[in-house]
Amino acid sequence: LVSVLSSAIIVYRLPWTWKCSKLLMKFIHAGLNTIAMILAIVSMVAVFEFHNARNIPNMYSLHSWIGLAAVIFYSLQLVLGFAVFLLPFAPVTLRATLMPIHVYSGLTIFATVIATALMGITEKLIFSLKNPAYSASPPEATFVNCLGLLLVIYGALILWMASRPHWKRPPEENIKILCPTGGTPEGTEAESTMADSSNADKSDLRINSEAARKQNLKLDEAGQRSTM
Amino acid sequence: LVSVLSSAIIVYRLPWTWKCSKLLMKFIHAGLNTIAMILAIVSMVAVFEFHNARNIPNMYSLHSWIGLAAVIFYSLQLVLGFAVFLLPFAPVTLRATLMPIHVYSGLTIFATVIATALMGITEKLIFSLKNPAYSASPPEATFVNCLGLLLVIYGALILWMASRPHWKRPPEENIKILCPTGGTPEGTEAESTMADSSNADKSDLRINSEAARKQNLKLDEAGQRSTM
Repeated sequence: LVSVLSSAIIVYRLPWTWKCSKLLMKFIHAGLNTIAMILAIVSMVAVFEFHNARNIPNMYSLHSWIGLAAVIFYSLQLVLGFAVFLLPFAPVTLRATLMPIHVYSGLTIFATVIATALMGITEKLIFSLKNPAYSASPPEATFVNCLGLLLVIYGALILWMASRPHWKRPPEENIKILCPTGGTPEGTEAESTMADSSNADKSDLRINSEAARKQNLKLDEAGQRSTM
Repeated sequence: LVSVLSSAIIVYRLPWTWKCSKLLMKFIHAGLNTIAMILAIVSMVAVFEFHNARNIPNMYSLHSWIGLAAVIFYSLQLVLGFAVFLLPFAPVTLRATLMPIHVYSGLTIFATVIATALMGITEKLIFSLKNPAYSASPPEATFVNCLGLLLVIYGALILWMASRPHWKRPPEENIKILCPTGGTPEGTEAESTMADSSNADKSDLRINSEAARKQNLKLDEAGQRSTM
């Protein structure tokens, strides 16, 4: 789940994907997030069935509360992202306004999922290790602690990649310069029907007047903002 | 500890402080972080003494591992931040290079501290609630779960404030426009001896040639980067 989530997050940050059409990348981002959502629901159902089979109460722990909150916000994020950024109805200004919020919520949900996993690991180690107990540091405890530490390092790396402005997918105009073959024909066609906030950057190479320059700076700033 | 940490983080984001000198704000940021560091050390000593008094092993849990890692990185961050951004020896280019790393590490350490607190709360609830147990959801459990949830919301709010570019302290030139009285005399004097990366933005109002404009865009980008 965490690995699908993180690939969905960094999918725009892989330079070798910059030659693919923006629409294709949006579909991959949405598709990976949908897979992660399905995995989250499957694992929640599994947990409830495991609890019911063993007569363990559901939803009593902080782990379960924060985990459920993360899943609820994640599904909101998915529906809203689909409606605003994938369907062709939302105006460019709405997309530009919501993009920084979308990026922030996505990264915050990701961090919350990692925190939930760490609480879950802590619970599991306390409940499962009995003889010797967790506090006696048996090899399993040390091994799982290392996995938890790696999870934190992994999460920190993903957040680093996702928050570097120079790893951001360049605006469309620059991509055409980087790779003259452009995207696939369908991609390019769909691109023109699906207005996108980063298209605002297209005016980058056509600065004629002082007013245009100022407008451009403002849009550049909005672009920077959307990288968080 | 979390509240001192978070005030240290958002100290540059409070508009009513923008009329104070940058150096004063740096001292407040460094001072609050030093207080947080002292609190962290005091609480770690208390934990070790509590464990030793009760014959509980030290450093066996994931909570303790990640907590110790956070404290180690936090002290590195403090020493490096002091040496680079507060002492007047580091060149502007080094400061500009390290600023985005400093901001990223600071926010990541903050998120890790919250995750550590959540793991600590989980452990404490499991170990302390015995009759009725945590899983029976006594009022204490529900109450502490709510506190944990509030901690996550609080952390998310702080990260939101710290990552909004328009809540960033404006560059010095603009501050003088906003508040013609400027900083205190000592502040302004020290400001000129202590070169700061955001001084690069001073060229903002003096664009003469195309080359200057491009240079300015590049510096603007560096400025945006330093907000993460």
